[in-house]
Amino acid sequence: MKLTHRVKEILSWYESDNPGTKANLARILMEGKLGGTGRMVILPVDQGFEHGPARSFAPNPAAYDPRYHFELAIEAGLNAYAAPLGMIEAGAATFAGAIPTILKVNSSNSLSTTKDQAVTGSVSDALRLGCSAIGFTIYPSSEYQFEMMEELRELAEEAKAAGLAVVVWSYPRGPMLDKAGETALDICAYAAHMAALMGAHIIKVKPPTEVISLDAAKKTYEKNPVDTTSLASRIRHVTDACFGGRRLVVFSGGEAGTAESIVEMARGIYAGGGNGSIIGRNTFQRPKAEALKLLADIIDVYKTQA
Amino acid sequence: MKLTHRVKEILSWYESDNPGTKANLARILMEGKLGGTGRMVILPVDQGFEHGPARSFAPNPAAYDPRYHFELAIEAGLNAYAAPLGMIEAGAATFAGAIPTILKVNSSNSLSTTKDQAVTGSVSDALRLGCSAIGFTIYPSSEYQFEMMEELRELAEEAKAAGLAVVVWSYPRGPMLDKAGETALDICAYAAHMAALMGAHIIKVKPPTEVISLDAAKKTYEKNPVDTTSLASRIRHVTDACFGGRRLVVFSGGEAGTAESIVEMARGIYAGGGNGSIIGRNTFQRPKAEALKLLADIIDVYKTQA
Amino acid sequence: MKLTHRVKEILSWYESDNPGTKANLARILMEGKLGGTGRMVILPVDQGFEHGPARSFAPNPAAYDPRYHFELAIEAGLNAYAAPLGMIEAGAATFAGAIPTILKVNSSNSLSTTKDQAVTGSVSDALRLGCSAIGFTIYPSSEYQFEMMEELRELAEEAKAAGLAVVVWSYPRGPMLDKAGETALDICAYAAHMAALMGAHIIKVKPPTEVISLDAAKKTYEKNPVDTTSLASRIRHVTDACFGGRRLVVFSGGEAGTAESIVEMARGIYAGGGNGSIIGRNTFQRPKAEALKLLADIIDVYKTQA
Amino acid sequence: MKLTHRVKEILSWYESDNPGTKANLARILMEGKLGGTGRMVILPVDQGFEHGPARSFAPNPAAYDPRYHFELAIEAGLNAYAAPLGMIEAGAATFAGAIPTILKVNSSNSLSTTKDQAVTGSVSDALRLGCSAIGFTIYPSSEYQFEMMEELRELAEEAKAAGLAVVVWSYPRGPMLDKAGETALDICAYAAHMAALMGAHIIKVKPPTEVISLDAAKKTYEKNPVDTTSLASRIRHVTDACFGGRRLVVFSGGEAGTAESIVEMARGIYAGGGNGSIIGRNTFQRPKAEALKLLADIIDVYKTQA
Amino acid sequence: MKLTHRVKEILSWYESDNPGTKANLARILMEGKLGGTGRMVILPVDQGFEHGPARSFAPNPAAYDPRYHFELAIEAGLNAYAAPLGMIEAGAATFAGAIPTILKVNSSNSLSTTKDQAVTGSVSDALRLGCSAIGFTIYPSSEYQFEMMEELRELAEEAKAAGLAVVVWSYPRGPMLDKAGETALDICAYAAHMAALMGAHIIKVKPPTEVISLDAAKKTYEKNPVDTTSLASRIRHVTDACFGGRRLVVFSGGEAGTAESIVEMARGIYAGGGNGSIIGRNTFQRPKAEALKLLADIIDVYKTQA
Repeated sequence: MKLTHRVKEILSWYESDNPGTKANLARILMEGKLGGTGRMVILPVDQGFEHGPARSFAPNPAAYDPRYHFELAIEAGLNAYAAPLGMIEAGAATFAGAIPTILKVNSSNSLSTTKDQAVTGSVSDALRLGCSAIGFTIYPSSEYQFEMMEELRELAEEAKAAGLAVVVWSYPRGPMLDKAGETALDICAYAAHMAALMGAHIIKVKPPTEVISLDAAKKTYEKNPVDTTSLASRIRHVTDACFGGRRLVVFSGGEAGTAESIVEMARGIYAGGGNGSIIGRNTFQRPKAEALKLLADIIDVYKTQA
Repeated sequence: MKLTHRVKEILSWYESDNPGTKANLARILMEGKLGGTGRMVILPVDQGFEHGPARSFAPNPAAYDPRYHFELAIEAGLNAYAAPLGMIEAGAATFAGAIPTILKVNSSNSLSTTKDQAVTGSVSDALRLGCSAIGFTIYPSSEYQFEMMEELRELAEEAKAAGLAVVVWSYPRGPMLDKAGETALDICAYAAHMAALMGAHIIKVKPPTEVISLDAAKKTYEKNPVDTTSLASRIRHVTDACFGGRRLVVFSGGEAGTAESIVEMARGIYAGGGNGSIIGRNTFQRPKAEALKLLADIIDVYKTQA
Repeated sequence: MKLTHRVKEILSWYESDNPGTKANLARILMEGKLGGTGRMVILPVDQGFEHGPARSFAPNPAAYDPRYHFELAIEAGLNAYAAPLGMIEAGAATFAGAIPTILKVNSSNSLSTTKDQAVTGSVSDALRLGCSAIGFTIYPSSEYQFEMMEELRELAEEAKAAGLAVVVWSYPRGPMLDKAGETALDICAYAAHMAALMGAHIIKVKPPTEVISLDAAKKTYEKNPVDTTSLASRIRHVTDACFGGRRLVVFSGGEAGTAESIVEMARGIYAGGGNGSIIGRNTFQRPKAEALKLLADIIDVYKTQA
Repeated sequence: MKLTHRVKEILSWYESDNPGTKANLARILMEGKLGGTGRMVILPVDQGFEHGPARSFAPNPAAYDPRYHFELAIEAGLNAYAAPLGMIEAGAATFAGAIPTILKVNSSNSLSTTKDQAVTGSVSDALRLGCSAIGFTIYPSSEYQFEMMEELRELAEEAKAAGLAVVVWSYPRGPMLDKAGETALDICAYAAHMAALMGAHIIKVKPPTEVISLDAAKKTYEKNPVDTTSLASRIRHVTDACFGGRRLVVFSGGEAGTAESIVEMARGIYAGGGNGSIIGRNTFQRPKAEALKLLADIIDVYKTQA
Repeated sequence: MKLTHRVKEILSWYESDNPGTKANLARILMEGKLGGTGRMVILPVDQGFEHGPARSFAPNPAAYDPRYHFELAIEAGLNAYAAPLGMIEAGAATFAGAIPTILKVNSSNSLSTTKDQAVTGSVSDALRLGCSAIGFTIYPSSEYQFEMMEELRELAEEAKAAGLAVVVWSYPRGPMLDKAGETALDICAYAAHMAALMGAHIIKVKPPTEVISLDAAKKTYEKNPVDTTSLASRIRHVTDACFGGRRLVVFSGGEAGTAESIVEMARGIYAGGGNGSIIGRNTFQRPKAEALKLLADIIDVYKTQA
């Protein structure tokens, strides 16, 4: 399969990586209906760990079965499917070679009182399960942020040496940030930038709001204004923060919303130069047909305008 | 390339180091317009991690792209370029062999409420990326200072065995120090001395002010007065504290200032026997032409008087 | 070089140690003007770390240069020189084989608000630098004492396997002890005993005062009185506490004093059966000629009466 | 130091290598009088191991001293100096940073009755000595060839991970080859190709003669004739065999010859697209002035026509 | 103990070694009656392993006891004592610190039909026994030479990292060499050179005879004649072969001979610039008084003329 010019250009950004890592990035970028466009839609299913099974799957009980998600991602023509160890183990043989997978190697849960995560998977796991990447979440600003970053450093070094890609979920939370601060424009951009600095190949952040949270940053934004009123320009600011647009950045779908609101968000991400959507609850909690329809609409946003 | 007498003399200070480490120090000291003089100008770009991307790069958006900094350092004829993992990865192949690099292997950020840092790079990373040195920041006086020192100890031992040099940023901060104390003369000298004691090859501290901060030290300074009124004599005191001038000591540019104030500071560093400037924000936040002009002026200070 | 009867007798105390450790103890005991007497004078230069460079070296600026201390120890005919990593690295090749060195592998500093230390050297460092021993400080009674003891345990075990000796600085300080308590007779004896119990080959404590600090100990001292009025008998009590005199115990010179007071203290240490003096500030802060004179006088105390 | 377009083009051939290896190749290619041209002259001094000290150095006794060879390579403005462990150890600190070195990590000798070699250096040695590459000799056709290839594989993998380059001397010898066969055109091309296949970055072979040695190959050469009468076209055939000219190939100077014959050979190598000469005996066995003259003439061949 | 100018000069040859290795070389060079002269007499007692106990010790049964050899070396004022594991273990504690020891870490025996050796000691053994160096024998030309060299390489790298010195016995034997060839001038020089190339700090070979053994070498010796008629000029040729005299070379006493013949040989070694004698059988097989007399006479040769 010949890589498109755009995918080759994207791979050239990762100039220090070995061909194995490049090949795995290429697999993700060339897969599915968006294959070759440089845009991606990824299905993440770590909700069960984060929020518990009922909050995750009761709205659509078919989704209790891990095979459901592989099938959803494949039928929808997505680029990759990301999940924790058990979810991948439960389908990796059946769907071997059918879709790139991302092994989520750390996880938090709603029963924790601390903003930390457990490492729940390894690079060896990712290799034996045929995954293309590991996924790791950091919580910048958490009192555990430095421990999480050090875990990421170690796992990322190992993953890269083994030819895997590294996907980082960068979700700010902690004593300095109120709820609004967690998705503030300056904070999202900062979180994305730190993931890039730590060597992430694909960066996942939440879509930023108009808020500027950090006092120390306000002066900068006054002097160097960003149009905060449009999602597209806010997305542009975040992708700028990722090495001037030379890292893949995808945005989560956020809280459950209407199909139209989600598609609208994709339009903003697209317009701002984001590389795509990573969208879980908003798809697997819907009946499958609806989910496929929604995903097709999102893909259309990224594709028809590619 | 034949080493100058001065560079050979400097290498002789590092008598316990293996030839690999000496060769990497030589590479840094022989590079660029100051090559061979024993003086250095280094470009550090860890601002993105420390202060966030907008505060670092919005004043000069071209600097969002990591390649910009490699180019700036090469065009300006600097001795080395220092940055965290992702920044180095994003240009290390394109600029392989073009300028010595220093992999900054720990990083803090403005979203932290503690005076600690995360280890974000390794000696293996430095080797695979072709770096000449690792860089590490300690915060003497921080409640995490001992942990940071122990991380440094371990990384430095490994780096030296692999023939790399070790650059230590020694930035005092913590419960015993108010803002003025962080750059007080006695504190800067102490911070520099501790870095030397931990085996640093190159020591980076802030230019010291006239303040004497530690009560316990005041008597000493009264009995053994240092001329605190001139920057040159304060710099001299700091380099004395680094093994009587037998360790390389470079000084940060400090807060954003006018070009003239920065060049003036270089004059003081030069006159006091400091080994050079490590200057980030004051260059990459300026338009490139201005930055090149400023760096040329700083280099002239160190060079014309060499 | 034939060992003296006295040195052989001392080595026999360390019957569980391997010949490598014994050889390194022999090197220290056979070196210098006191070589063979079983008494020692050691030069420790960790003041720079503990108190900062100006408080340590400004009174005698030649001492900023690490080579100064090697030379002082060699010219004075001392038994060993102890210092942190950077100080040893800066002279270990020039003075290779010229005097036994003790690598101080942990260090505190005056900018710390906690009574803890950082591990700043390793057994591998000691081997590559040709040291005869590692040195480690514990602060019995500190809230970090157990962590420090556990670090000591691990390093001491490793050092002994590699044929190195272990020197322990045992300096009580912490919430239960006021200033007077830190050098109280019962506390000094207790601190020395704990160092012996942890497997130290050479124990360094401060000269004890007449104070009995621990309430729980007072009854014992009343029942079993020690002549606390003479330094000699207090020293005897401390050496008794070190396995009935079967461990090497040396005493620090304490705060800066007159030459005569320091020589007088050596007389007390000698008379009480102490194994010698470990004396830093009181020598390297004096002009070299004075320091050599003072050290010669101290050595005379231990030697002429040997 | 800005890389030339040609050196960048050469580095692009090594697309799977990490930036560290590329930087070390760049160091070699940018050094000396041919720096930047893509052509190289390398000084190899492994003759002492291979042929004994008198046969190597008696004609020019100054060459017994390892420092002589560092100086010769530096003064002549060569690209690199290659030698076994002891030779590098004896000068690596004095000449740290002055010229790229290649640690020859295996060695044979004239007292062996088998066509094998001993591994006599390691990647760790290369790092601690500041080398840019390891060098390894294989004897294709020897009864020990597979053992040697397996040793190379292991060392090369380790070297590449540590950011070093790999130089392979490929010298066919063994039961199938008579003396003429060892430098036959088909055999040289085959030996060079195998080195390329094993992942060598720089390949060293002997200049090929007009002989076609392998019966099985003769038919091919009849069907697809190579102009064997000119050295240039034979060199072209060998460089073609190294990935169509996309690997660096250098040629040994061969047996002792006249200065003119050696320069003439360089002309052929140049014309055939070879990347340079690796020339030992023919330089260090001459008086230094003669050797410098000869090397200058060889360099002129590669340079003036570059 | 202040090192002499000559010993400092010798240490400067070993510029790539760490201070630990330099200190151990200094210990050997500063020990005994020749301490400081740069000349050495070493007692090796590996005969028991090589020739069996009766052939070694029956002529002087006191020598069955390992302590005898420590005492002999100490009383004679030698520089070091070399022996296999068991011999060192049997006296290392009693004689700890009394004389530098060299742990012979491989051994052959007369019951072998192959010219190989077993590795019988480790670097850890050397450290726990307080040895200053490891000793290793290679048999250049043996069919096992490459295996032995590879064992040496690995042990030497480990020893150097731990601050030990490496002594290599280079004894040619094998299918290409008849008895005369084993001590032929060209072969001795070659054997010594190979030990230097493998990184030996001290090289032990047999005194060379007038024979030139290797056909390939004869032409060289005709063209570049060595005065083979005097031992001194033959010794000079061997030391030249060891980096132009910049490695320590000692010569074995050879077969049992008269006291006068052995002293005469020392005169030749001295005159030819050899660094001393390593002499076993010829001392420990004599009654102790005779042995001490002989060693005193040998030492006089090296000392009075120093």
